[in-house]
Amino acid sequence: VPTSDSAPATAAPPRLRRDARANQDKIIAAARNVYRRSGLDVSMEEIASEAGVGLATVHRRFSREQLVEAVFAERAREFLALAQDCLTQPDKWNAFVSYLEGLCVMHAEDRCTSDVLTLRLPRSPLLGDLRDQLYYAQLELIQQAQAHGDLRPDFAAEDVILILLAIGGVISATAGTAPESWRRVFALIVSSLRAERADELPAPPQADDLLAALAKPRAGRRPSGLPAS
Amino acid sequence: VPTSDSAPATAAPPRLRRDARANQDKIIAAARNVYRRSGLDVSMEEIASEAGVGLATVHRRFSREQLVEAVFAERAREFLALAQDCLTQPDKWNAFVSYLEGLCVMHAEDRCTSDVLTLRLPRSPLLGDLRDQLYYAQLELIQQAQAHGDLRPDFAAEDVILILLAIGGVISATAGTAPESWRRVFALIVSSLRAERADELPAPPQADDLLAALAKPRAGRRPSGLPAS
Repeated sequence: VPTSDSAPATAAPPRLRRDARANQDKIIAAARNVYRRSGLDVSMEEIASEAGVGLATVHRRFSREQLVEAVFAERAREFLALAQDCLTQPDKWNAFVSYLEGLCVMHAEDRCTSDVLTLRLPRSPLLGDLRDQLYYAQLELIQQAQAHGDLRPDFAAEDVILILLAIGGVISATAGTAPESWRRVFALIVSSLRAERADELPAPPQADDLLAALAKPRAGRRPSGLPAS
Repeated sequence: VPTSDSAPATAAPPRLRRDARANQDKIIAAARNVYRRSGLDVSMEEIASEAGVGLATVHRRFSREQLVEAVFAERAREFLALAQDCLTQPDKWNAFVSYLEGLCVMHAEDRCTSDVLTLRLPRSPLLGDLRDQLYYAQLELIQQAQAHGDLRPDFAAEDVILILLAIGGVISATAGTAPESWRRVFALIVSSLRAERADELPAPPQADDLLAALAKPRAGRRPSGLPAS
């Protein structure tokens, strides 16, 4: 991500740098809105227009790649904040369920950028690092809930992704007029996650296979900003 | 659906009528393949080419609308056969679970035409009738399993659709390299459906709201053959 004082001058007066920073934030927020509405295959013109700045201003601050990365990095930090917040909860089952539910709520609000979670997303060192942090925070939530005997012992990190994909399937079909429908399916799934109810399950997908499946962009939703790998 | 002896003559010789019927079946099978691969927004040329017949032959037998209707009617009959087959099973819980699982398997094999189930689909008297039959067969499966105390009493017909949407979300993301992933989520959901485990759930969506949500075509998957209502 370009910093506010990267492009034109290191000696710019403070007010100019503040303006540049404000423009940058405005462009990122606008990009996020446009991505949410229309997916990642949008023109820089649409983003400039949403931000109320000229196209040249957008191009001066961001390449297409950098803009996608900036939006997804912001999103990844929100997921990470959720996980860290849940880790402070004393009850480890509630902490785990709050995390899962929080993910689903965030997914319901903005399906486009939650691809950062399912890895259906461009790779970049910044995003990779954030994703690693998220992965370990999530693993801790899972392991704590299992250590306390609340969460079924065969629950795997891959299941978080599978559950989010399932909830996403409900959300994307019902968002129009029955937007709370996903909560019923979520409640069903959560009730089956308690350790004392653990029937035998089919094995989770191999992590590599799951990631490969997800890395393959779906028709019409291909992140066009960054290279696929 | 046009019948084989509709167009040219009532007095056509038997062999000609047999040929016409064979052509018609070939065209329906080809349309189904093309829809499965590319969705419903495909040209009649693509379907003719897949069927190995001329475009004029396709146009002589089917309008775009009739072809979509014929393919979906075939699919609806398959779902109905599944439901009726499950109704003959003596164990009512197994019958219900077999039905749900069968729907998911058929959905995994061909997501396009399973829109017939979620009603995200053109209306026609023929399809409406098949859908009613399917609805009542499914209701009987649900009520039998509830009457035997196996299925949670708050399970609603709408839940079948919600579950299929959830499984569809997993399938559409993982079909590439982890195509069995949905079975794990399915097993989780089923294990939460047993009556003795029934936690309180959020209410199901109002049937009208759910149908309205589903009737609204999703981007890129609009059935273009028939009018939306």
